[in-house]
Amino acid sequence: MTTTATASSTTDPASIGPNYAELLGAWRDAEVLHSASSVLMWDMETMLPEKGTEARSEQMRMLAGLVHERRTTERMGELLAAAEGEASASGDTTAQANIRELRRDYDQLTKLPQSLVEEMTKTRSLAQHAWSKARDANDFAAFLPWLEKQVELNRRKAECLGAPAGGELYDALLDQYEPEMTAARTEEIFTPLRAFTVDLLERVRTSGADVDDTLATTPLPVEQQKRFVRRVVEAIGFDFEAGRMDDSTHPFCEGAAPGDTRLTNRYREDAWCDALSSGMHEAGHGMYEQGLPAERWGSPAGEAISLGIHESQSRMWENQIGRSLPFWEWALPIAQDIFGSALDGATPETMHASANTVQPSFIRVEADEVTYNLHIMLRFAMERAMLAGELKPKDLPGAWNERFKADFGLDVPDDRRGCLQDIHWSMGAIGYFPTYTFGNLYAAQLWDAMGETITNRDELVRRGEFAPILDWLRTNVHAHGRTYKAEDLCERITGKPLQADPLRAYLGGKVKAVYGV
Amino acid sequence: MTTTATASSTTDPASIGPNYAELLGAWRDAEVLHSASSVLMWDMETMLPEKGTEARSEQMRMLAGLVHERRTTERMGELLAAAEGEASASGDTTAQANIRELRRDYDQLTKLPQSLVEEMTKTRSLAQHAWSKARDANDFAAFLPWLEKQVELNRRKAECLGAPAGGELYDALLDQYEPEMTAARTEEIFTPLRAFTVDLLERVRTSGADVDDTLATTPLPVEQQKRFVRRVVEAIGFDFEAGRMDDSTHPFCEGAAPGDTRLTNRYREDAWCDALSSGMHEAGHGMYEQGLPAERWGSPAGEAISLGIHESQSRMWENQIGRSLPFWEWALPIAQDIFGSALDGATPETMHASANTVQPSFIRVEADEVTYNLHIMLRFAMERAMLAGELKPKDLPGAWNERFKADFGLDVPDDRRGCLQDIHWSMGAIGYFPTYTFGNLYAAQLWDAMGETITNRDELVRRGEFAPILDWLRTNVHAHGRTYKAEDLCERITGKPLQADPLRAYLGGKVKAVYGV
Repeated sequence: MTTTATASSTTDPASIGPNYAELLGAWRDAEVLHSASSVLMWDMETMLPEKGTEARSEQMRMLAGLVHERRTTERMGELLAAAEGEASASGDTTAQANIRELRRDYDQLTKLPQSLVEEMTKTRSLAQHAWSKARDANDFAAFLPWLEKQVELNRRKAECLGAPAGGELYDALLDQYEPEMTAARTEEIFTPLRAFTVDLLERVRTSGADVDDTLATTPLPVEQQKRFVRRVVEAIGFDFEAGRMDDSTHPFCEGAAPGDTRLTNRYREDAWCDALSSGMHEAGHGMYEQGLPAERWGSPAGEAISLGIHESQSRMWENQIGRSLPFWEWALPIAQDIFGSALDGATPETMHASANTVQPSFIRVEADEVTYNLHIMLRFAMERAMLAGELKPKDLPGAWNERFKADFGLDVPDDRRGCLQDIHWSMGAIGYFPTYTFGNLYAAQLWDAMGETITNRDELVRRGEFAPILDWLRTNVHAHGRTYKAEDLCERITGKPLQADPLRAYLGGKVKAVYGV
Repeated sequence: MTTTATASSTTDPASIGPNYAELLGAWRDAEVLHSASSVLMWDMETMLPEKGTEARSEQMRMLAGLVHERRTTERMGELLAAAEGEASASGDTTAQANIRELRRDYDQLTKLPQSLVEEMTKTRSLAQHAWSKARDANDFAAFLPWLEKQVELNRRKAECLGAPAGGELYDALLDQYEPEMTAARTEEIFTPLRAFTVDLLERVRTSGADVDDTLATTPLPVEQQKRFVRRVVEAIGFDFEAGRMDDSTHPFCEGAAPGDTRLTNRYREDAWCDALSSGMHEAGHGMYEQGLPAERWGSPAGEAISLGIHESQSRMWENQIGRSLPFWEWALPIAQDIFGSALDGATPETMHASANTVQPSFIRVEADEVTYNLHIMLRFAMERAMLAGELKPKDLPGAWNERFKADFGLDVPDDRRGCLQDIHWSMGAIGYFPTYTFGNLYAAQLWDAMGETITNRDELVRRGEFAPILDWLRTNVHAHGRTYKAEDLCERITGKPLQADPLRAYLGGKVKAVYGV
C-alpha cells in the first residue's frame, strides 16, 4: 500500500571530503541520542506510570544536555568551516544543502548563551504550571507575571539570534519554526486572508442555511471508533510496520527514527468525526516522517523543512481529503460496516455537510476550517505586538477581546475562553502560531498543483485509492528533506511563492457547497 | 495497599567526604543514562514497530557505550580510591557497602579488555541468530561452532575476571550473576537436592494417584485472563501508579527507574493458570524493584543484591503463595466472578491440585516446581564441565541425554527438546542457570523464616490480605539493597546460610498434599 520515497541516490559523504564526512557522522551521532529521547517523550505521554515522572524528567534533561553538547562542540564548528569548502567544490546539491542547514542550526545553537538557555528551561516549567492553574481558575492576573517574563526572555532570545537585515525582532523567533519567513511577509499574506475570511463568515451567518451537524456527534463506542480510524489511517498509507497509533490526552506525532513513527489520538464517545480528523491529521504528519529519505537520516537532507510544511501534510489529509465528498463516498460504507445501525440513514452528502459546518467559537482547537485561521491571525497580531512592546502583556485581554469581536462577532465571556486558552506562550513559544496557517496555505496551494497532475483525483479518493496522492507527496515534498527552503520548494512545485488565493478559493468553494453562498 | 520501604535514613553523601559524594554523583549519572536505555529495551519488546529495529539497536548501542565509558573513566578510579578512605573513616555502613560494591563493579568493568567486550558483543548477536535457526531445524551441528566459540570466549572472560583463591574458572562467571557464590558451594547445595528430587519424582511416578490438571488448562478468553491477573497482581501489592503490565512474547520485569517498573506477561486461551503464575512471578520481581530505597537509587545500596535473591522474590509470590491452598480459597471466587460459568464446579482443593501436578517433561520453562530444579542442575553440570574442558561441546547432546535419562527417566527425542532449547549459552551467558535454583532455595528458606513471625499467614492469604507479607519482605529484604551479600542477608534473616532443607521440606509437603506420598 505504501510506496517508498523516491529519493535521488545518495552520494557517499566521504567522496565530498573528510571533514564533511566526519561532520555528518558527528551530527548523526547526536541525532541518534536525540531519537532515544524522542521515544522517551512519546512514552511519557502515553505509557509512563504517574510516579515515574521525576525519573523521566531527569533522563530527558540528561539526554538533552548530551545532545546539545555534541552539537555545539568546537570540533563541530571546525568541521563545519572546513566542510563548507569541500561541499562547495563538490558541486553536490545535497551536500551543499546539508552544509547550508547545518551552518544555520549550529549558529542558532551556539548563539544563545548557556545562562539564557537555562533560564528559559527553568521558566518554561514554572510558567507552564502557573498557566495551567490560572486557566483553570480563569485568573489572568496570576499568569501575567509569567507572560511578562516569557515575552522578555523571548526578546532577549531574539536579540541573541538576531533579526535579518531590515527585519524586526519577531523575525528571529518565527525563523526558528518557519525558516526565512518574516513578520512582514506573514502580514502580507495574512491581511487579505483575514478580510476574505471575515467576509466569508458573514456570508455564512446571513445565509439562513441550517446545516445539520448531529451526524458528526452521534455517540459511538470508542473501541469501534478506534477500529474505524485505524482502518482509514491504514488505507491512506500510514505504514503500521514502521509506526504505531496509541492514545494520549493531546494527539501528536513523533517521528523518532527511521521505521519508528508514532501517532497518538484521542476519542470521545460523542466526537467520532473529531477522532477521524485528528487521526488523519497525525497520520499526515506521520506519512511525511515515513517519507523522508531514511538513508539521509541524521542530516538536514533527511529532515522535515519547517513546521508550516509539516502542517501542510497533516492538514491536506485531514481537510482536503478527509472532509471531501468523494472521501465520504468511500468512507461512509466502511463506517456503517463498523458502527452498525447507528449511522443508518446517513449519506455521503449529509456526512460531508456535517463534517463541514462553520460556526464561530471561542476555542481554537475546536474551530472549523474557515474560522481556524482567524484564531491564528489574531494570535500572530497579539504576540508580534507584545514582542515589539506595542502591546503590554497586561493589556492583552482587552486587545484580544476587541479583535475577537471584530473578527468573529462574538464577545469573549472570560479569559479561559480567550487569551488563556493556549499553552504556547506559557512554554515560551512565540512565533510558533503562524505556522498553523502556513500549513493551511501550503496545503491548498500544493493540492491545486497536485490536481493538475492527478486529474482523476476525486475518482481515486472515491475508490479509496490513495497511493497516487501519497506518491505525489513523496516525490514532490517528502523525498527532498530540507534540501530546499519552504517557499523555494513551493515555487518549484507550484510555480509561485506562498500565497493566499488557493486557500481562499478552497474555503470559498466549500462554503458554497455546504451553505450555498 | 502497598507500603513504602522502611529504609534507614540516608546519610548525605557529602558528609562522608567530597570524593565519596562526587563518586556517587558520577555513578548515578551513568545510571540515569542506563535507565533511559532500560525503557528503550522494554519498548523494543512491547511496542517497537517491526521496521524500527535497526534504529533502536543503534540507540541502545550508543547508550550502552556512553554508560560504560562513564563508569570506567580514570577519574572514577581515582574517586573510588580516594573515597575508600572516607567511607572507612566514616563508620557509615551504607557508605562502606557502597564502596565495597562500587569497587567490585568498577574492577569487573575495567578488567575486560575492550577487544574482548567487542568480540563478545558481536558473537552474541551472531550466535543467537544461529541458535534460533538451529533450534528450529533441530540441527545441533549448525550451532556447535558457536557453542564452542562462546565457551572459549567465556573461558577468556573468566581468566580476565579471575577466579577466587582455590576456586575454579567457573566461579568468576557465576560471581557475575550471584556474587561470591562458587561452583563448589553450588555443588554442595545441589547434590543432596538432586538426590532428593529424583527420589521424590520416583515416588510421584509410582504413587498411582491420578491428579486432574484439566482445570488449569480450561480455555478462557484472553481479555478475562488479563483482568484476573491484573486483579491478583494489584491485590498482592504491585503498585500500578509506579508501574505497568503489558504483553510480550516472553514475560519479563524491567525496573527502569524509581516509580517506573514494568512487567510483561503472555496469555494463551488454554493456559490461564500459566498467565497467573507468570504474572505473579513478574510482579514478585517488580515489587522487589518497587521496594528498593528510591533515595539511594543509582548507588549499590539502592540496587538488587543478586539474581538469586531477585528470583526468590518472584518465585515466592508465584509458588509459595500462588500455588497454595489458602491462595485458591481467596482467588477462586474472584476467578469465578470474572470467568463466569466456565469454572463452575471448581473448588479451592481441585484448583490447588490442578496447579500442582508433577510431570517430568523435556522443556525447562514448562516444568513444574519439583522437576524444575533438575533441569537447572543438569545445565549447571554441563556448563561447568564444558568450561573446565572436561566436556567437549560436540559431546554435549550425548551427555545431556544421558543425564536426562538418569534424572527424569525419559529419553530425549531430539536436541530441540534437549540441549538446544535454551537461549542462554547462545548469548554467552554461562554461570547464569544456577541462579534460578538459588531463587527457589532462598524463597523456601525466607518463607520459613517469615512464617515464624507472621504466624497467621495462611489465614491472611485466605482473606487476600497480602500487605503483612509484602511488608516483611520490604523490611527484611528490599530495604537493604546491596548492603549485604546474598548469603549474609540470608543468615541475618534466617540464622543460617543458604541450604537445601527448607526447599526439600516445602516440595515434599506439597507432593504429600497432592499425591499423598
